[in-house]
Amino acid sequence: MQGIIHDDRELRATATGAVRDEEFFREAKDVRVLTRTEARRIDRRGRFVEVVNLDTGEERRIAYDKLVLATGGSPVVPPMPGADLKGVFRLYHPADAVAMRKAIEAGEVRRATVIGGGLIGMEATEALAEHGVVVTIVEMLDQILPSLLDFETAAYLRKHLVAKGVTILTGTRVLRIEGEEGRVRRVVAEEGAHDADLVLMAIGVRPNTKLAREAGLEVGRSGGLRVNKYLQTSDPDIYAGGDCVENHHVVTGEGCFVPLGSTANKHGRVIGDNVTGGRARFPGVLGTTIFKAFDANVGRVGLTERQARERGHAVITAIAPGPDRAHYYPTAQFLFVKLVADASDGRILGAQVVGPGDADKRIDVLATAIHFGATVDDLPDLDLSYAPPYSSAIDPVATAANIIRNKREGLAPSLTPMEVKAKLDRGEDFILLDVRTPGEYEAARIDDPRVRLIPVGKLRARLPELPRDKEIVVLCQVSLRGYEALRILAGAGFRDVKFMDGSLAAWPYPVVCG
Amino acid sequence: MQGIIHDDRELRATATGAVRDEEFFREAKDVRVLTRTEARRIDRRGRFVEVVNLDTGEERRIAYDKLVLATGGSPVVPPMPGADLKGVFRLYHPADAVAMRKAIEAGEVRRATVIGGGLIGMEATEALAEHGVVVTIVEMLDQILPSLLDFETAAYLRKHLVAKGVTILTGTRVLRIEGEEGRVRRVVAEEGAHDADLVLMAIGVRPNTKLAREAGLEVGRSGGLRVNKYLQTSDPDIYAGGDCVENHHVVTGEGCFVPLGSTANKHGRVIGDNVTGGRARFPGVLGTTIFKAFDANVGRVGLTERQARERGHAVITAIAPGPDRAHYYPTAQFLFVKLVADASDGRILGAQVVGPGDADKRIDVLATAIHFGATVDDLPDLDLSYAPPYSSAIDPVATAANIIRNKREGLAPSLTPMEVKAKLDRGEDFILLDVRTPGEYEAARIDDPRVRLIPVGKLRARLPELPRDKEIVVLCQVSLRGYEALRILAGAGFRDVKFMDGSLAAWPYPVVCG
Repeated sequence: MQGIIHDDRELRATATGAVRDEEFFREAKDVRVLTRTEARRIDRRGRFVEVVNLDTGEERRIAYDKLVLATGGSPVVPPMPGADLKGVFRLYHPADAVAMRKAIEAGEVRRATVIGGGLIGMEATEALAEHGVVVTIVEMLDQILPSLLDFETAAYLRKHLVAKGVTILTGTRVLRIEGEEGRVRRVVAEEGAHDADLVLMAIGVRPNTKLAREAGLEVGRSGGLRVNKYLQTSDPDIYAGGDCVENHHVVTGEGCFVPLGSTANKHGRVIGDNVTGGRARFPGVLGTTIFKAFDANVGRVGLTERQARERGHAVITAIAPGPDRAHYYPTAQFLFVKLVADASDGRILGAQVVGPGDADKRIDVLATAIHFGATVDDLPDLDLSYAPPYSSAIDPVATAANIIRNKREGLAPSLTPMEVKAKLDRGEDFILLDVRTPGEYEAARIDDPRVRLIPVGKLRARLPELPRDKEIVVLCQVSLRGYEALRILAGAGFRDVKFMDGSLAAWPYPVVCG
Repeated sequence: MQGIIHDDRELRATATGAVRDEEFFREAKDVRVLTRTEARRIDRRGRFVEVVNLDTGEERRIAYDKLVLATGGSPVVPPMPGADLKGVFRLYHPADAVAMRKAIEAGEVRRATVIGGGLIGMEATEALAEHGVVVTIVEMLDQILPSLLDFETAAYLRKHLVAKGVTILTGTRVLRIEGEEGRVRRVVAEEGAHDADLVLMAIGVRPNTKLAREAGLEVGRSGGLRVNKYLQTSDPDIYAGGDCVENHHVVTGEGCFVPLGSTANKHGRVIGDNVTGGRARFPGVLGTTIFKAFDANVGRVGLTERQARERGHAVITAIAPGPDRAHYYPTAQFLFVKLVADASDGRILGAQVVGPGDADKRIDVLATAIHFGATVDDLPDLDLSYAPPYSSAIDPVATAANIIRNKREGLAPSLTPMEVKAKLDRGEDFILLDVRTPGEYEAARIDDPRVRLIPVGKLRARLPELPRDKEIVVLCQVSLRGYEALRILAGAGFRDVKFMDGSLAAWPYPVVCG
């Protein structure tokens, strides 16, 4: 839809340009593909599938020894007045994207509303905006990407989207879509109405399991088909893979519904092995996700802090914002890294990495580490590749882990930006000590009389200015100098000192300048 | 030197611009730094270091409870006639790079010779070439980067460098450097002489251990100071870190000398913890290396195939060339991936990833996997982040592991390109079956009458054309279709079929076009 892929046939082509159509499968693979053919019923006792040719209406039975279900998923379409108006789209099949692109290229679309601030909504937002369309996202929950990111990470991304001209309404529900002459014209949400020439329903995707359920196959709590590690359904002669199944989550041990092309490819290899006599296993997923949002790369793996707490983990987290490579190297870019670990044993539970820098590399390192049950003590030991064009000498992932180690060892008491905001709002008496340079302070700072500025380089000399009987919360730009200031204060005998996690880079609220 | 970093003070600055000079360390860190001061002797019994002020000649003793040695390394300078001529450089300290850049900017340099085809030689070659200097590399061994890459990986990189105008002489030794009026003019190697206005001696780096050795501290077989996992030398009150120490290699269990900034940073944290009462450990290194060579990213980790064989491993390898992200995505770039595993248990021993694509990400995933003792069965299970702008649905790292799995299961007998070349050279009678398209065949192919072309899509129909009593070696562009053809032939009862590892993309010898 974005126009990067010019022809949807490219998506079906091999790397050398052969389009994977019915003829290709027959000639190259000796596989018969029946298109325009619907599977209506699985007869497990008779071991056949009833299919119907949608063009001729002809019905027939296809016998099987082993059956593989790859029925995919479909967009969730909630009952909503106006959902059938012209200009209201879902986005799942490439044909949906082609239809949306046609509408945009016909010049019919100036304003679009995306209902749902999840993954597909985000990807579509960028594509629409790059066609010059003004986009409004409406998300029912209090943040975008609620199942993928924590609040402060989503807030960082939200700032980026808003800077690109996107309007984001959170914590509000769409009541109805209104049209004129059968075409969408307006979206009415709890907060009020706004104009729209195009609406994308991007609430989510659900697995297509009707055929399997009617055949009596088991469905998991996530709604996907239940499969064992060999990807057999509750009928051992019927395998299932791709977006219709429930995956095992390696961190939680629970079933989860995470439909992804990479997972479907892995399923394919395992099922291919097993239906031909092998015994391959699929160990599960980590919920790894990556996508592009304008100039930001957005990655996540494992559990968010919220998801970890919901599952009863005692959680310890770190936010490590900073450059993705040597800070003096001209292509260095910012990354916002949040790491989530179990407070009891230090095991990594999840991570979020967002920003213009190389997020995917850090996510893949973390996905690999989590796969092997890594703790925060393992990450800084990794011999990751280092040269200034590629990374910093201590990778942000290792820095995040070191912060958690410092917290676990009692060296680094901390407050989250949300906790600091709550203290400010409650009117508590404490010092919010900004240890950056005066120039940085001028450029952007938290606007509150409790803020004091002492650059870290002058802190040792200016200790007498600080009261010893008051709580001090230190902050800087990314928490590096803040941590150093904390250690200086602790070393000088100050007793109630904390630092603000992620400092200003992670502050999800307004700042003042000048 | 390349001009990317404009001022060497940038290298000493923090991310917020404070230059880390003597004053910075005193004010911000409460650390006294003595410059222009040489440590002459360690008195372990008296627990002091004798130092001399190089400007005043004043000598003094500095007492210690704990001593940390961070004496670094120095370039190896072999005895060579002409090595003291003007225009002959070493490259270790930023000042060396500044001096070289001055010579280049003065317009004195049109041709440069780099003696040594290792890491520093490669990095310098790019910097010189980007200043318009014509570069010749002279390497004594039969390939560039002999301690970092295997032959075919180095051959791929060599083609890239040659295409950029670099001359590479391997298997030849420099006999002397000749000059006129005290300035370098010519380099004389065994193979002949060539002109040079600048010579860079880039043979390697050795650890500076004189001070430590004279104090009776132990040195390892690699030449670096021997330290335990707490980074204590043979005197427990003396720690050592950075380029002067021998590191523990996690894969071999041996001591190794791999001086790197990232390792030095890790040492710093461990030593800092331990001299202040902690008990931090440094588990060792994997020899991870990354660098940029023009448009190619060159990464490696663990052992090369040669290093693994030298240590007695039964080795199984795979070459997986291909795009680094979805092949239809416009920013997709080529990567040459070589994976080295132990044939007995499938444990990953090392990898090399070279090409214009994102090599560093794959190296970091592999470094993490090797750290945790991963086998080839683990890699394809990793839930790595997937979206078309970032990776292919099956990452090249997983593909390489799957190839080794197929080989271990007996599904994929193979020959390396070097083995195929040797068979051709020996005049053996076999069929080299190219299964690409006629267009690809026209564009580049191995020039030999034993080569036969049957595109994989037609192979099932054209099986009768192939003799069943002859050895068949299948190849394509990257080995994907080659493997498929191999399975088609095996399924049709052909008994002596192999595929060529990495196919044409890994062929280190000339091809013909048209």
